Parts: sequence; C-alpha cells; structure tokens
Amino acid sequence: MSMNNLGIVKRNIVRADRAAVEKLSRFGVATIHEAMGRVGLLKPYIRPIYNGARVCGTAVTVLLHAGDNWMLHVAAEQIQDGDVVVASCSADNEDGFFGDLLATSFRARGARGLIIDGGVRDVADLTSMQFPVFSRAISAKGTVKATLGSVNVPVVCAGALVNPGDVVVADADGAVIVPATDAQQVADAAGEREANEIAKRARLAAGELGLDMYNMRETLSKAGLRYVD
Amino acid sequence: MSMNNLGIVKRNIVRADRAAVEKLSRFGVATIHEAMGRVGLLKPYIRPIYNGARVCGTAVTVLLHAGDNWMLHVAAEQIQDGDVVVASCSADNEDGFFGDLLATSFRARGARGLIIDGGVRDVADLTSMQFPVFSRAISAKGTVKATLGSVNVPVVCAGALVNPGDVVVADADGAVIVPATDAQQVADAAGEREANEIAKRARLAAGELGLDMYNMRETLSKAGLRYVD
Amino acid sequence: MSMNNLGIVKRNIVRADRAAVEKLSRFGVATIHEAMGRVGLLKPYIRPIYNGARVCGTAVTVLLHAGDNWMLHVAAEQIQDGDVVVASCSADNEDGFFGDLLATSFRARGARGLIIDGGVRDVADLTSMQFPVFSRAISAKGTVKATLGSVNVPVVCAGALVNPGDVVVADADGAVIVPATDAQQVADAAGEREANEIAKRARLAAGELGLDMYNMRETLSKAGLRYVD
Amino acid sequence: MSMNNLGIVKRNIVRADRAAVEKLSRFGVATIHEAMGRVGLLKPYIRPIYNGARVCGTAVTVLLHAGDNWMLHVAAEQIQDGDVVVASCSADNEDGFFGDLLATSFRARGARGLIIDGGVRDVADLTSMQFPVFSRAISAKGTVKATLGSVNVPVVCAGALVNPGDVVVADADGAVIVPATDAQQVADAAGEREANEIAKRARLAAGELGLDMYNMRETLSKAGLRYVD
Amino acid sequence: MSMNNLGIVKRNIVRADRAAVEKLSRFGVATIHEAMGRVGLLKPYIRPIYNGARVCGTAVTVLLHAGDNWMLHVAAEQIQDGDVVVASCSADNEDGFFGDLLATSFRARGARGLIIDGGVRDVADLTSMQFPVFSRAISAKGTVKATLGSVNVPVVCAGALVNPGDVVVADADGAVIVPATDAQQVADAAGEREANEIAKRARLAAGELGLDMYNMRETLSKAGLRYVD
Amino acid sequence: MSMNNLGIVKRNIVRADRAAVEKLSRFGVATIHEAMGRVGLLKPYIRPIYNGARVCGTAVTVLLHAGDNWMLHVAAEQIQDGDVVVASCSADNEDGFFGDLLATSFRARGARGLIIDGGVRDVADLTSMQFPVFSRAISAKGTVKATLGSVNVPVVCAGALVNPGDVVVADADGAVIVPATDAQQVADAAGEREANEIAKRARLAAGELGLDMYNMRETLSKAGLRYVD
Repeated sequence: MSMNNLGIVKRNIVRADRAAVEKLSRFGVATIHEAMGRVGLLKPYIRPIYNGARVCGTAVTVLLHAGDNWMLHVAAEQIQDGDVVVASCSADNEDGFFGDLLATSFRARGARGLIIDGGVRDVADLTSMQFPVFSRAISAKGTVKATLGSVNVPVVCAGALVNPGDVVVADADGAVIVPATDAQQVADAAGEREANEIAKRARLAAGELGLDMYNMRETLSKAGLRYVD
Repeated sequence: MSMNNLGIVKRNIVRADRAAVEKLSRFGVATIHEAMGRVGLLKPYIRPIYNGARVCGTAVTVLLHAGDNWMLHVAAEQIQDGDVVVASCSADNEDGFFGDLLATSFRARGARGLIIDGGVRDVADLTSMQFPVFSRAISAKGTVKATLGSVNVPVVCAGALVNPGDVVVADADGAVIVPATDAQQVADAAGEREANEIAKRARLAAGELGLDMYNMRETLSKAGLRYVD
Repeated sequence: MSMNNLGIVKRNIVRADRAAVEKLSRFGVATIHEAMGRVGLLKPYIRPIYNGARVCGTAVTVLLHAGDNWMLHVAAEQIQDGDVVVASCSADNEDGFFGDLLATSFRARGARGLIIDGGVRDVADLTSMQFPVFSRAISAKGTVKATLGSVNVPVVCAGALVNPGDVVVADADGAVIVPATDAQQVADAAGEREANEIAKRARLAAGELGLDMYNMRETLSKAGLRYVD
Repeated sequence: MSMNNLGIVKRNIVRADRAAVEKLSRFGVATIHEAMGRVGLLKPYIRPIYNGARVCGTAVTVLLHAGDNWMLHVAAEQIQDGDVVVASCSADNEDGFFGDLLATSFRARGARGLIIDGGVRDVADLTSMQFPVFSRAISAKGTVKATLGSVNVPVVCAGALVNPGDVVVADADGAVIVPATDAQQVADAAGEREANEIAKRARLAAGELGLDMYNMRETLSKAGLRYVD
Repeated sequence: MSMNNLGIVKRNIVRADRAAVEKLSRFGVATIHEAMGRVGLLKPYIRPIYNGARVCGTAVTVLLHAGDNWMLHVAAEQIQDGDVVVASCSADNEDGFFGDLLATSFRARGARGLIIDGGVRDVADLTSMQFPVFSRAISAKGTVKATLGSVNVPVVCAGALVNPGDVVVADADGAVIVPATDAQQVADAAGEREANEIAKRARLAAGELGLDMYNMRETLSKAGLRYVD
Repeated sequence: MSMNNLGIVKRNIVRADRAAVEKLSRFGVATIHEAMGRVGLLKPYIRPIYNGARVCGTAVTVLLHAGDNWMLHVAAEQIQDGDVVVASCSADNEDGFFGDLLATSFRARGARGLIIDGGVRDVADLTSMQFPVFSRAISAKGTVKATLGSVNVPVVCAGALVNPGDVVVADADGAVIVPATDAQQVADAAGEREANEIAKRARLAAGELGLDMYNMRETLSKAGLRYVD
C-alpha cells in the first residue's frame, strides 16, 4: 500500500454497473468464483454471523487499525444506496468494531451489509435487524476512536484485494470480490455456468457417474490409476 | 496462582448481591463490558453451544486439568441456586469435560449454566435441555477422574480472572466477569448506557451521522484526515 | 502409508456387518466413543455443516491432495447403498472439494453422507438436500482434477485411522470410526452403556451427587482434597 | 479485573524478597513449576526471541491495548533494579510493542528483561544487547500512544495471573510466575527437587528403568496393563 | 484480482530505481515500515528460515496454487539481477514449494532471495547456501506441476499487496513492501528516522525517561492517568 | 484404532532391516518423501527442538493421553539399540511430556531420539545432550502418571500412521515414516533420486532453466500460459 493512501477519504468512486451488480446478486459465491476463473475469494475464516445471511453490492472500503473503529464512522458518510462496506485491518484483530448502532446508521445511509476482517458485536440485534454481516470473529470488546485509517482506498481484506466500487458478493459459502470492470463479463459467465449445471445435476441424480459425464476414465488411466480387487 | 490454592474446595464464598445480579441479567455482554470500562471479557473463542444461549449468575469456579473432569463432580456439591459454574483448565485442551449427566446434576443443584475453557459433549441433549453452555470446543472425547484440581479458588478462564462469587454474564457476544464488589455499580452504569443508546439509535436511524452526533469532524481534521475527489 | 497404496482403487472391500451398523446408528458419537474404550475419534475441528446433521454407515475411503478433488469422482463409482465417504487430504487444506453436484451423484449411488478433512461449498444447497456433511471448513474455492490419490486404501482422516468398510458415525458431538471387526461388540457395549445412563440420569435429576453415586469421596480424600471455609 | 484498576499507576509495590529471587534464579522454569505444585505457568506460545535468553526478577506489570504501547513508557519510570516488566494486552495482538529504544530505556532503569503477550521488533538489536525478551510474536509493526492502560495492577498475561512484585522466571522452557509470598518456600522446594534429580539421573543413565525406580509395575498391572508378544 | 490476470506472464516490468533500492537495503524493516507511515508489512507469520537472513531487492511476483510450484519455474526466467521472488498462493498451504534446486536456479539468474506465503524444504542446504528465504512454514512435502498461475501480476502475499517491481525488504523483524514509486521518498524518510534515533538512544541510555523525552506527561494526565501509592 | 489395542504393550515387534535403516539414514527427509511417492510425512508442526537435530531409526510407538506421560516410562523398557520413540497423544496437547531424565533413560536403553505429538521440556539440557527431539511444542508443564495408553501398537502421530518397527527419519525439513517392508525399496529409490539431482543442480547453477531442463514449455503453452509485455 502506498503511504499516500494513508489518512484520506476518497469521495468520488466509480461503482460497478448497477445492472451487472443486480445480475450478480442472483448467483452464489461459488458460482461467481468459478465464473471468474477462481480468483477473488476472501479467506474462508470470514463467516456470516447468522444463518441465511446473504449480500451483494458495491464496495465502500475502509482501512482500520487494531482496536479502533473510527474510520467506520467516517465511512458511513460515503455510503450510497446499494453499497456494502468492506473493512480491513492493519493487523489481525478480533475486537468488536461494529454493532447495532453502526448497523442502524449504515442501513439508514443505504448500506446492504458489511464484510469485516475483524470482530463484531450485538449479533443478536444484528440478526433481528437481518443486517448481513460477514466477519472474522464475534466479540463484545469495544474499540476506541484514536487513529486515522482511510476510506475508499484499495485495501486487502482477508487476503483479497478490494478496490472501492468493486462488487462484493457474500453468502453461506464465503465472500468474493468482482472487479468493477469485470462485473458484466462475470455475471454473464456465471449465468452460463449455472444453466450448464442444471443438466449435469439431472444426469448425476439419475446415477450417471462424473467419471463418464466428464470423460475422466482415459485421463485417469494415463495418469496411472490402477483398479485392484 | 499460589500453590496453597491447589487441591482445595472452598465452601463458603461471598456471592455478589442478588439484586445486582438480577439487574445485570437484563443487559447484554457488550453493554456490561462497556459499563465496566472495557475490562473483564473472556477471549472470543468462548462460544455458546446453541443459538440463543444466555446466562447470568454467580460464579462457582473450578480448576481442571487436561482430560480430567473430576473436579466438576466436586463442584456440583458447592452449587447454590443462581450459580454459574466457571471452569478453567491448566492447559489448552478441547476434550469433552461435560455432558448431559453433569448438566442434569448441575441443574438439580440450582446451576444456571456453565462457562468452560475446554470442550463439552452431548450438545444435542444440552440443547434440548436448554442448559446454557459456553465453551471452547465441542468434542465427544471423554475424560478421566484422576488428578486433583480446586473448587472456588481464583482462576484464570479464557484470559479473564474469575473469583468465586463474581457475576458471570454470557450471551451471543461472549462472556464477561463482573467482580462481586462492582456488581451494583456496573449494573447502574449499564442501565444508564442502555438508556442513552435508545436516543442515539433513533437519530442514527433517521440518517444523522455519527460524525456529527459524536462531534468527530474537528478531531478528525486535526488528526490530519484529508478528503479527496 | 505404504507407497504401494498410491494411485489405486480397491473395488472389493469388506464392509462391517449391516445389522451392527444399524444398531450403532441408534447411539450418539459420545456413547460409542466411550463404548470403544475412548479411541477412534476424529479431531474436534470436524464439524457438521448444518444443525442436526447425523450419519452412520460404512466407509468408502479417499485420499485427496490439496486443491484437487479428482478422486471424489473416482470414489463415486465405488459407493454402495449405506456407505459414507471418508476423505482425507495429504496436506492441511480448506478448499471446497465438494458441492451440490457431487452430493447429488453420491446420493444417487447410495451414499448416506460425507466426512472430509477439507472444505466444502454449496452449503445452502447441501442443507436443503439434507445431505449430511462433516468438514474441516466451508469454502467457495473450487478444486482441480490433476493428481492421482487413492480410493479404499487405509487413510488417516483428521487424526483417525480409517480402513475401508469401517463404521463411521457422526453427529453434533463429532465423528468416530468403529473398526469393522469391532462393530457388533461396540454396538452391544454402547447399548449397555446407554441403558445404564438412564438410571443415573434419574438419580442425578433428583439431586443425588455424582460424588456419592460414583463413590468418589474416599478417593478424593486419599488424593489429598481438602475442604476449607 | 476491577474497573477501579483502569488508568492507574501504582507506585509502591511490595517486591518479593531479594534473597528468594536470587535463589530462584538458579533453577530452571520446569523445576520451579514442579516445586510450585504445577501452577503459575504462562502458555507455551510465549517464547524467547533468541537462543539462551534467560531472566529472573520481580514483576512490574503493565496492561496494554492492541496496537498501543503508551503504558510501556509509563512503566519505565516504575522500574527498579532487578525488575522484569510483564506486559499483558486486553486483546490478542501481535504488533511490535517494544524495540531497541525501549530496551535501552528499560535497561538504564535497571530492568532485567521483558515478558510480553504481544509482539516485539528490532530483534537483531535486542539480541546484540542480550536483553532477554519473551514474547508471543515478532513483528515490525509499530504501535500508537493513544489509550490508557495501567501499571502495577494485577494482570493476566498469557493465561497466568501476575501481581506486581511477583517473581518471574523465564528460560528456554517458558515462563513461570511465583507469587511474592511463596518465593522462599518455592525456592527451597526447587532446591530439594533438583538435588533429588541428580541421583535419579545417575541411576537412569546406568540403565535402571523408571518402571523400577519409581515402583510403577504394580500400579500399572492393577490398572490393567497387559504385555503381549 | 481480475480474471484477466490469470495464466499470464508479464515480461516487462518497471523495477524500482536501483539507487533507491540500495539505499533502502541499509535500513531495517521496522524503520522502513515507520518511514512509510506504517503500511506495507506482511503478516508476522512470514519468518526467516535461518538466523541472520536478510534481503532487499525488486519483486518478481508469482501466483501459485496449493501444492503446485509450476509457476516458480516459469518465474525463474523472468528474474534479473537484484530481484527477489515474492510468491503468493491462492489458498493457505504449507507444502514445500521450494528447495535447493530452485534456489540454485534462482541464484544463477540473479535472485537475491525469496518471500513465499507457503512452505519450503531443504532448509539445511538453503542455509549452507545462505540463500535468504522468508516463508510461512517448513515442510518436506513436494508439490506438483499441473495448474497455471501467473508471473508478474499484482498479488496479495501474506496480507500485503505486491506489484511487480516494488521493493521488498525482509529481515529478522519480518518483511515489508515499498511501492516502486515511493522508494526514494521512503529511503529518505528512513534515513532521517534512523539519524533521529541515535540521539534518542543516547538519552534513554543515560536514564532519561521517554515520558519526558516525548513530553507525554501532560497528555497522560489529560487522558486521566492517576498515580496511586 | 481397535479397542483391543488399548492398555497393551507389545514386546516382540519386527523392526525394519538394519542395513536398510542405515542406508536411509544417509538421505534427507525431503528426498525420502519423494522416493516414497510423497506419502508418510508427519504434519509440518513437528519441529526439531534445536538446530541441526537429525535422527533415523526404528519406531517404538507409544499412545499417550493429554497431560499424562506414564506410557513413556513403560516404553523405555521396550527400547532396543537403534530405536526412535514415536509418541502420539489421544488429544491435541502441548504439555511437557518429556525432559532430561527420560532422555537419559532412553539413551541408556539405546534410543536415538524422540518424535512426539506433544510438548517437551528441559530443552537446554536436551540440547547439551544432543538428544534429537522433534515435537509439537516446548512447555515446562509437567504431566501425571494416571491413565493407561499403549506401547508398540499402530498409532497416528501428527497425521501419519506409524507401525512399530517402521523406519523414522527426521531432520530440519520434518519427519517421515517408511513402512518396515518398504525400507529397502525406498532407500534404493532415494539413492537414485539423489544421484540424479547432482547433475540437475550443476545445470541449474550454470543458468539453464528448469523450463528447458524439464521440457515444460510445451505443456505450459498447451495449458494456456500467455506471455505479455
């Protein structure tokens, strides 16, 4: 990260095309990840805080420091309708950076959810609100407001690079980032992939083997697979 | 820990004031933790074994050794109505120290729940019983009864110091220890804090920014925050 | 593991006696683990992907490599009615080796579930299907089909040795392996153990202490336990 | 921890008897831990930053917050000759709280070393200085000076309760806390234990078995151990 | 990461200015990290494989997949004198991607070292060669050559964004990335910082307190710090 | 594991051929692992306790329980000249099961070293003795002698199946198990592999690329690798 991205808030960001975002919202994270060629996933320790949480939107990015949620308040002002806040932290930290008050504020500004490489709290309230949060941990521990981070700079969140305006999709399988410029292309590829899977599922359900459906037998044999009794 | 606290059971402990405990039971762990000035939390790896588990009571403390649950049986006799057993272990261990038989016994003695820095089992039964357990792990692995620990001595559980008689509160956000002598003061502070949050929540829901509500703009500016386009 | 077990598929395996498997299916993992003398458990990081998942069957074993699920397709052909696929990996890896298509195929072949020392995806679909999966992780990350492993050789899965044909039982408390030759003996022992617990539970519920029911007081005293006021 | 211990520096603490500290300094951590009856150890993730690091002294305790080393500067003033600073953190954090400048200052004030449940940096310099540090991690990441903690209050460090003035001993095997009031008693017990081990070592070196030297055979047999061919 | 960066090798990259790299090579990672404003560090789990390892150079980046080191061979051809290979992996994996043969090849091409978010092997040989390697793990486990990654695309390595041509500095304290365009500015700032520390060290060594040297007393008092006896 | 292997000591085990063991002792773990076809490795968390530790011998296996080292004393009697004790534990545990007294006894009985999926202590003494130990952790924490395990039954140690009499090789890269019946075959394959690497190393040192030496260019191109400027 460049030192020139420290302590700044970028107000004007280019969000991914709204239609592409809406199309992407129809697919699961696993499908989108495949459609992208298997890049863009956050590490699997990012988990939904309640069953059924699901979110798709454009990223407002935040760089936090351990034990300090000041920049989440700064970020609130930059949220537009349809955004998802994506918060990274400059060190591994499980403190509770976010709770029901910030969720109330984020929702009032139009946010659809939060992905955070840190902890959150008030999870019973967040669940009642059905405000989708995907986090590294749950912790009641509060944070201070003392050190500047940044808003809407490129961040690395749970191992993935996120640029402001990118599409974020998260569900029970995890979270994936689609670069804004790839959004339409990925949405199309995801659609094709899903259509293709319907037929496959029916054949497999009828007892056909993947070995035959995917023509694996010859390759396996060439690779040296031996069947013994 | 003093070597003089090994192999002993303290029968008479001073429990926190019952009214203060009942008042504390109305608040969430995050609120109580804030009301205490942000101390007393157990590490966030302590998690409820079922959704909705919640407990508040006075601590009967237990020091266990890895793979040995003998002292939980000894502790059962010391339980009084309204107690929560808080069990620590002299080494990191995820064995299943506790299951439905012990839960049956603990409940019969008046226990409201268990916090354990170790594993538990029979979680389907414990869930049916709605016996709130907060643990480090779930494991079917049984334990032996071979080595003395202690009951009702000060213990360190998941990073927090717990004295017998302290108030223990646990919910979806984690677990917190309120020293018996601070219980009333913390309960009052928690009540004030919660009242205060109602008004804040309404303002944030109406779209007001935390930046303005908490008067952060000037401090941020002095700290050097820059807005760019 | 012998190098002679690499790249092979064993077609004929001796499955545990069906009646013994059915008898074992009535007991919980904790009870079976106790009945076996406390061996055979998988490490507790193997967790069900949805609440209430439970499975009992005979093992079809698979050796996978990190990021490669080729052998799961090979394994599908070896599944018989009542089998549970048990997949190990030659390195710690949390990729999503298994999803709804493979689950559809496995179920069509008669599989009752999957235990995998790796990640899985499509967990919302797997939950809808009520296909019981016990895994190390949930991850949307897909895998390749490039490197040979083996099917129906002895494997080490999450720390436990599994021979093809062994009985696998998994529930909310974890997963346990019963060697095929021990299945009937363990089932009988589990039955006795469970019968024995009913009486104990009633006595404990009535307030009797484990200290008395298990005659622990004298042993504790000999070990040096001191009661202080 | 009581909320009344927040934001305070206790100037007058009762340090363990100097003669007892010196006697304890002759023994290894494993021996002292045994002499105490197996209590008082820090978790084993606390490791020396260089080979051969060893320290024994009286504790000046510090409570830090994640990413903030302000209180280490406050603590420096409280150090007396023969002290060891013991720093805990209110959340798991691996930032580099301590480096060669603070080590220079601590040494100038008489400190013998540092135990910290966090990260440190400048480890090449610290090694050149032969300033013994035992830490959770090594990290170049700097910290801020923004949030109050405390100095010389009771803290939990890496799972162990430490009161200011307690004896801290650390070597290649880890770190142990001896309560100030137990110091002489533990030193004596450690001396006896060590004397006792010399004879044992000679007998074992001559080929005598622990089975015979400790008279284990009968107990093992009673416990059911079977020898098979 | 964009799907358009998959399966490609970028041949022409803009390396940081050589003079700036050489200037940066004189400073420690902690100093450079401070000079950058505290950004750019890799996570602290990246550790040198031998004591005294140190490296500074320009990044040739590699994206690997779990258990597959094919792209390291592709990267070798892109190495120029003064480069450091920086390898990331699309999933957490500790396999031994790199050993003495690749080190021999890399060195012959002019590489100064390797930073890898994965495992390495032949560490005794690498130590004899004094080829500096900073890795996540040490593992004898070999890898296959089956799946395409990329060379000289932007990668996220151990939590840090690395662009090809950036400066990489690693020593006993960890590893830091300086963007190519910031190299000179950071080198200058590091020089000033180091000069500044010499005077501070002397004052601290003479017993002056950081409390006074940094004028902390008033701020601490305003923050509410209380001294008690 | 079969319940029939609990609480037993097998006295007569078939050790791998002595000549094959000696031949294997000449090779590194990485080479042997490759020669075996990449199976048999212990997980990489098993690390030497001092630099330069290296061991090769025949396995005497031990099954321990958490916090209990009783069976190590039982195992001592079964050690023959050239053996390496391989100790597994029925639960993840980092206690210090082994120290200088047991090392003295083991060495007197002819043991060449210890591999243990647990902790050890007295590491300064063990280093002075140059008794090679590979462990999961270092911990001063002592263990009790209360619960039966087994000696010379098949065990799973750090993820690898070990039968008594198998060859164990451990060095800076980790530890590998060679089944007794495969020892000669693996030793021969390792010898061939090592001879083969000498020529490769020379070519790579001369600047030849692995891309050419291994003929990778065509395969990479077919897989779709694209070079861009």
